[in-house]
Amino acid sequence: MKKKFLGTIILSLIAVIIAGCGNLQNSSLSTGGTDDSKKTKTVQTTSSSDGNSYNTLLQGKQYQVSPIAGLVSGNNDNQFNLQSFESGLIDVSKKEFPTKNYTFQEGQVLKANTVQQWIGRKSSQNPDGLNPEDNGKKEPNDRNPLYLSQIMENDFYKESGSNYALSGVSIGLSMNQVDYYTKVKYGSTYKTKISEAKRIEQGKKMADEIIQRMRKMKQTKDIPIVVGLYKAEESDSLVGGSYFMYGVSKNGTSEISSWKDLSYESQILPVVGEAKVINSSDADSFASFKSHIQNYFPKLSGVVAKVHYDNGTLQRMSITITTQFYGESEVRSFTQYTQNAASTYLPVGVPLEIKVESVNGLQAFISREEGQKNFYAHVFNDY
Amino acid sequence: MKKKFLGTIILSLIAVIIAGCGNLQNSSLSTGGTDDSKKTKTVQTTSSSDGNSYNTLLQGKQYQVSPIAGLVSGNNDNQFNLQSFESGLIDVSKKEFPTKNYTFQEGQVLKANTVQQWIGRKSSQNPDGLNPEDNGKKEPNDRNPLYLSQIMENDFYKESGSNYALSGVSIGLSMNQVDYYTKVKYGSTYKTKISEAKRIEQGKKMADEIIQRMRKMKQTKDIPIVVGLYKAEESDSLVGGSYFMYGVSKNGTSEISSWKDLSYESQILPVVGEAKVINSSDADSFASFKSHIQNYFPKLSGVVAKVHYDNGTLQRMSITITTQFYGESEVRSFTQYTQNAASTYLPVGVPLEIKVESVNGLQAFISREEGQKNFYAHVFNDY
Repeated sequence: MKKKFLGTIILSLIAVIIAGCGNLQNSSLSTGGTDDSKKTKTVQTTSSSDGNSYNTLLQGKQYQVSPIAGLVSGNNDNQFNLQSFESGLIDVSKKEFPTKNYTFQEGQVLKANTVQQWIGRKSSQNPDGLNPEDNGKKEPNDRNPLYLSQIMENDFYKESGSNYALSGVSIGLSMNQVDYYTKVKYGSTYKTKISEAKRIEQGKKMADEIIQRMRKMKQTKDIPIVVGLYKAEESDSLVGGSYFMYGVSKNGTSEISSWKDLSYESQILPVVGEAKVINSSDADSFASFKSHIQNYFPKLSGVVAKVHYDNGTLQRMSITITTQFYGESEVRSFTQYTQNAASTYLPVGVPLEIKVESVNGLQAFISREEGQKNFYAHVFNDY
Repeated sequence: MKKKFLGTIILSLIAVIIAGCGNLQNSSLSTGGTDDSKKTKTVQTTSSSDGNSYNTLLQGKQYQVSPIAGLVSGNNDNQFNLQSFESGLIDVSKKEFPTKNYTFQEGQVLKANTVQQWIGRKSSQNPDGLNPEDNGKKEPNDRNPLYLSQIMENDFYKESGSNYALSGVSIGLSMNQVDYYTKVKYGSTYKTKISEAKRIEQGKKMADEIIQRMRKMKQTKDIPIVVGLYKAEESDSLVGGSYFMYGVSKNGTSEISSWKDLSYESQILPVVGEAKVINSSDADSFASFKSHIQNYFPKLSGVVAKVHYDNGTLQRMSITITTQFYGESEVRSFTQYTQNAASTYLPVGVPLEIKVESVNGLQAFISREEGQKNFYAHVFNDY
């Protein structure tokens, strides 16, 4: 008996447009009272025409990092939070600022010292602190916790004649579910848990306060401001947190009139112990995939997936396969086999990313990009 | 003034065929006097229809590693040698066993204890040793060096009815340019340099000896045997060695009648100090690419390329860019920018691989695959 399965896979497209734009006069990038209108700047953008990503502004021919990137209060050191806090704000922004119409730049309006004050506790020295005053108490349920740990800003520009004008801003507020603190310097870490109700109440209040402050700044006086409220995951979580609510302050208004709920969730598969899977069909698909590849290639130390949901619907799946492979031929064969298994077993219609790695680093990479049916695979080989 | 450059990039295809094949009777995989003809085995292959890679046999439903993989004599610990020794033998094999007609399996004919003896020194205890006897001398130019450090075998199968029959074998011999040794156990390392003439003479002699031995084995009695002679790079080289000569022993003959020269070379760009570039046009292209991306993204710690040539013609270029980037947006913008720069500045018509990495691992990946005009790019994001 003989069987042949034939699967033809044609791959995806990524297009690149580089738009170079001359004189940036009357720059919307000018700050405070400075008049930049005499300066001539060169603005270039890096762009992806896949339609799902923003073009990015390269001001003065260089990429501009937000001055507030990385400013944090509190002691939550979950690295995944940093990444999902950033990429999540882009997702939220897309709801209000379509990628086709807006060009992205990391936030340049809020300055580092401003945000450093805002994420601090309110005190006589720091009247602008958004976190509550220290009430002097040390017990988890008696003290005032830090509700806000981080602020992020994204700027969105529109082409306006030969210039780019700032036309929208998104603000992300990272809200604690748990505030980690020490009673004495370098002492043990304690936790204050923050209820969902309190987190929402505080997030909304801080959002309105920030909008009012930004309406006093020249650049953000009358453009739409989106605020996303992000729920940071606990320190020991293997996934990052997610945005749970967002609202828009339309041109010039001083508050968010209506908030919309978001229900993003991430999870690691297989789940450990009694934990409940978000979607059992996806979990079953992954289990079939896993057992299929382990059957033919027993030298796999680990096969885990990270799944991301929006409102219960799978958004993407990232799989990491750890191998004990020795040679390139084995990696190549495994990659071909895995690609086929992915196509057979894994959920369709969502982006997939599969990393094959050993202790020496990435050996191969397989992906199915957003909006694509077909797979791309690459085997790394050093020579 | 305003300029727009438009580059549309459509990506590549990878197709997958899984051929499952039933009963492997009269197995060509049987060894020595054992008769496997009564056994029923399931053979499956993993395959890539890109035409440049071999389909791989999955015997007994699992990938079979060669029992001689990793057996080494001597003290050369250049990790790149291991990879180029393996991938180079595949390249040499393609000259004699076209990927369309043959299915690959890692070598199963030569056994570990056999090869362990062959790569050892000849002695009364080890009459089959291919390396010369120890003459008792310790000085670099007086002692007999180890000429041969490693043997690799690749097997090539053809479909024969409902079976796969072993139809060709390739043998790689890793020859030392420098033999590293110690005068006393755990002592300092000394070097014996081996002349090109001596290396070629020894390689050819060992090749014929191995063919004669393999002609006495049932499986390789009368099929073509390809032997590739590989020149291992020195321990401290940043590139691996390369195959410098190969020959074919046609069906059943006991030696290689004619040898063909190979001139593969690898190099790191930019070159250090007074070193001479293999191809100045490629080196200039890379320098332009490098300065272009560093101009817009100053936070790059390193931009280096590894180039591989066959007879002075560029075969592939692998670029590693080390960044100090903080956030995903910056990586995404940089990736788009780099892809465009690669398309503008780097040599056309050869496979390109660009890795963007920080101390935390791979951040993004860009490639142009064999035979493709267009680029693929992927940004890694954990959430």
